[in-house]
Amino acid sequence: MKLDNYNVQPPLAADASPPQDSLSDADTDAEDIFVPPLNFAMVDNGIFRSGFPNSANFGFLKSLRLRSVICLCPEPYPESTLEFLKANEIRLYQFGIDGCKEPFVNIPNDTIREALKVALDVKNHPLLIHCKRGKHRTGCLVGCIRRLQRWCLSSVFDEYQRFAGAKARVSDQRFIELFDISGLKHHPLSFSCSRK
Amino acid sequence: MKLDNYNVQPPLAADASPPQDSLSDADTDAEDIFVPPLNFAMVDNGIFRSGFPNSANFGFLKSLRLRSVICLCPEPYPESTLEFLKANEIRLYQFGIDGCKEPFVNIPNDTIREALKVALDVKNHPLLIHCKRGKHRTGCLVGCIRRLQRWCLSSVFDEYQRFAGAKARVSDQRFIELFDISGLKHHPLSFSCSRK
Repeated sequence: MKLDNYNVQPPLAADASPPQDSLSDADTDAEDIFVPPLNFAMVDNGIFRSGFPNSANFGFLKSLRLRSVICLCPEPYPESTLEFLKANEIRLYQFGIDGCKEPFVNIPNDTIREALKVALDVKNHPLLIHCKRGKHRTGCLVGCIRRLQRWCLSSVFDEYQRFAGAKARVSDQRFIELFDISGLKHHPLSFSCSRK
Repeated sequence: MKLDNYNVQPPLAADASPPQDSLSDADTDAEDIFVPPLNFAMVDNGIFRSGFPNSANFGFLKSLRLRSVICLCPEPYPESTLEFLKANEIRLYQFGIDGCKEPFVNIPNDTIREALKVALDVKNHPLLIHCKRGKHRTGCLVGCIRRLQRWCLSSVFDEYQRFAGAKARVSDQRFIELFDISGLKHHPLSFSCSRK
């Protein structure tokens, strides 16, 4: 029996459950700590962002009940991560974009567009968008989502910079600014601020 | 007639609506840009965080359909903000905490505890937590929420620092670390990662 500790009272001592199942949260703290991936955050309803997840993050990722993952790195996943996705019926969408350094950055327009369509499709939610550090490639895709949500550019860039920190790139911000959202405008959005 | 532009096709030219209502999103971009408050972000389902909102943010805040606001500043709101809250039936919970500078920081335990109870109550969602800059007081309250969500401290601090930037305070992080969550543990949580 797996307890939902937040909604269910811990069973009484007389309960038939074995002792390890009758522990309340207060007794199991050490086992229950969640380790979110690097640079993890919620983007909006059903969409999360982060850096590259590793096995230490599996417990946390499982708690998000993800339906899909958008990986923006070209490298293949380690076997353990593929097994984790399979075991939890999480669909992987891989859009490999090289993690180039300035001034050789080339965020491919069409790849971001395809990734954006996957990200906006509520059938794929809850969904995690990630790259290696959750800064540049993820920042570009999230920036395009914000443009669709009609955020002013200064707020879009402010959010981009919060994650990129000292590694913020003008080229990424230019990409976000110039990205053509006109073809995606009538895509249904389920976000918090998508309706007037 | 108010169109939900994302879900409804723009009316045909022959439609009886007056011209200004038959414009599609593509034609009304300039009017439709949202200005989120300083340091705005989604914390989790139904909870947002930011710095002090001003009248430029009202359109965006309205789009969030807030039910309540937790203000962690002691200063009274400007009349225009009070009117905005009233017009949109948003309940204000004010927990005035002085915005002291280190080493005179004193985040009051009991006040954060009371604010936390309001923040966790889904009847108050969607809810915005804010202080002046969305860094220290808001960062402490959100940090306590993350502890309740059982995030490891390094991730809690990483998020705190992402918003506080160069203004990050060890004293705030110590407050978050030492805050006693035991009395709040069985509070029902509606968050993305509250259940195993």
